Amino acid sequence: MAVSPRIAIDAMGGDIGPAVMVAGMARARRKDRALKFDVYGDEQQIKPELEKHRPLMDAVTIHHTTDAIQASEKPSQAIRRAKTTSMGMAINAVKEGAADAALSAGNTGALMAMAKLALRTMPGIDRPALAALLPTLGQTDCVMLDLGANTECDAQNLVQFSVMGSAYARTVLGISKPRVKLLNIGTEELKGTGELKEAAALLREATYLPLKFDGFTEGDKLSRGDVDVVVTDGFSGNIALKTAEGTARFVTDLLRRAFTSSLRSKAGFALSKPALNLLKVHLDPNNHNGAVFLGLNGLVVKSHGSANYKGVANAIGVAASMVRNDITRKIGEDLDNFRAHAFAGDAAE
Amino acid sequence: MAVSPRIAIDAMGGDIGPAVMVAGMARARRKDRALKFDVYGDEQQIKPELEKHRPLMDAVTIHHTTDAIQASEKPSQAIRRAKTTSMGMAINAVKEGAADAALSAGNTGALMAMAKLALRTMPGIDRPALAALLPTLGQTDCVMLDLGANTECDAQNLVQFSVMGSAYARTVLGISKPRVKLLNIGTEELKGTGELKEAAALLREATYLPLKFDGFTEGDKLSRGDVDVVVTDGFSGNIALKTAEGTARFVTDLLRRAFTSSLRSKAGFALSKPALNLLKVHLDPNNHNGAVFLGLNGLVVKSHGSANYKGVANAIGVAASMVRNDITRKIGEDLDNFRAHAFAGDAAE
Repeated sequence: MAVSPRIAIDAMGGDIGPAVMVAGMARARRKDRALKFDVYGDEQQIKPELEKHRPLMDAVTIHHTTDAIQASEKPSQAIRRAKTTSMGMAINAVKEGAADAALSAGNTGALMAMAKLALRTMPGIDRPALAALLPTLGQTDCVMLDLGANTECDAQNLVQFSVMGSAYARTVLGISKPRVKLLNIGTEELKGTGELKEAAALLREATYLPLKFDGFTEGDKLSRGDVDVVVTDGFSGNIALKTAEGTARFVTDLLRRAFTSSLRSKAGFALSKPALNLLKVHLDPNNHNGAVFLGLNGLVVKSHGSANYKGVANAIGVAASMVRNDITRKIGEDLDNFRAHAFAGDAAE
Repeated sequence: MAVSPRIAIDAMGGDIGPAVMVAGMARARRKDRALKFDVYGDEQQIKPELEKHRPLMDAVTIHHTTDAIQASEKPSQAIRRAKTTSMGMAINAVKEGAADAALSAGNTGALMAMAKLALRTMPGIDRPALAALLPTLGQTDCVMLDLGANTECDAQNLVQFSVMGSAYARTVLGISKPRVKLLNIGTEELKGTGELKEAAALLREATYLPLKFDGFTEGDKLSRGDVDVVVTDGFSGNIALKTAEGTARFVTDLLRRAFTSSLRSKAGFALSKPALNLLKVHLDPNNHNGAVFLGLNGLVVKSHGSANYKGVANAIGVAASMVRNDITRKIGEDLDNFRAHAFAGDAAE
């Protein structure tokens, strides 16, 4: 377990550029003085940004490259440049053990393809999944996966995601037996696709796993706080996550209009402002930024392409927490346990 | 075109019961004196409710039955009782021309199966879709479909949904050439499932249709007001719609907590209340209630199972608007046009 997590940063990915990435690193390090960074990208662009954050400089090693993956590049093209691009080099640092985790704000498809090729999936995992924390009305956030790594998933994928998501909830949220639900279009057993029904049957059987399978949930119940891990395919998960983000912004936009609609409501807003600022912090997607690829032999974290420096800092915090909690090893243990039981079941048949 | 729309009401469907259905009819009729109702259900339960709304009584004919479809019934079971249940009888009234539209708050799967069997899909339509209006920041609402009628859809289904959704936007929202987008997990052409890419290619070709195909959109862009018709499969559409509802409720719950967190913010709330009430009205799902099955030879409207009387009244308003706009005929014309061009294209190849 790394007491001083070393994070490999792809400084060139995403629309945000090296300035925001470096400012995010500086903010993360102000909160966590143990962090170290390997930064991959154009030295000419990175150095002037580092000059602005002098306390950070001791913790940073720059690895120069001008080759970067573009947002529009196909994953199949991107993987050919794994050795020369900032994204590929950051992942490679994890593969070689030089860094504990890689972080990129770049093209998700390319990041997934490169990470899968370099780090390989863990034994028992067919596909890695992208997982993140969602805010709820309950005591803790909930883990949701897959958020877009796999457009289509079968029942086995969904079961594997459940095991990985539960390991996340146990290690990072400290919930010993997380409540797991499958995202569906109804809570009755007859609802949904064949894959969902089959995954539900498998999870109901697998009572030896350190999770409590609790059936189906729906899109309007995600923020209730009655589930710790929400499992879905990457298409539906991406739609749900983005719809939640868009709706939160829509409601706060309407709220802003309401508050500025009259002098009276402006005065009301001025009085309520301290309380409303807390709400703003709670809803800011930057404070939930940082999705993790689970199921690989190494940690890769995706920062949102349009996150600000606070968002980058949050994603670095997620990466550091994953490293300190040794999540890769813990997922591996759960998977070994799952397979041992599955084989025992096969033998008894 | 019916100047006095006659709506067949399934009074027994959903959790809400005849009291809410009758109160909703009364509210709808106060706004629109031309409405007439055929009400299907238990006379013993319906009559006492009607007594509470005396001005409504002249506009209502009760058709007695005690047989009702349950929320947990499978569609395959439900269709066997099409002739005896309140849901089946209401749909049959549309089939026989006795009513202009049917409305039910019952089991969506059963309603879909019964409606499809009794009314049949229109020529050129393989599957009907459930469509509703979503609030946006723009000048008008946007039409979204499918919201849950079809768990899986192919490219042809998505193209047909685009034609039907555009007819909805043209007739009900008055937009002569609606902007249509397909819901996806990215806006780049290479994103998404094979079905989505194929549907996009077909829609790009079909320039003779009275719609403007504008590529892909994502879950966080639905409420921006830059699209008039959002087309998706019923699984993703249901997830998106419910996630939007749940997130809006989540944010308003957080807002309530913020306002009650101190005396100061309570005072601010009191001042801002008139403006905030407008926001509340705008976000109340009851004011957007009423999803329409498009693509059938007859109109069937689904009211949310937990809508209140205002929601029922809104759904009745949707049904009446559809009847007056003669939407079934207009969708038929667009489909004829589409097929004429498609055949001409085939012949030229």
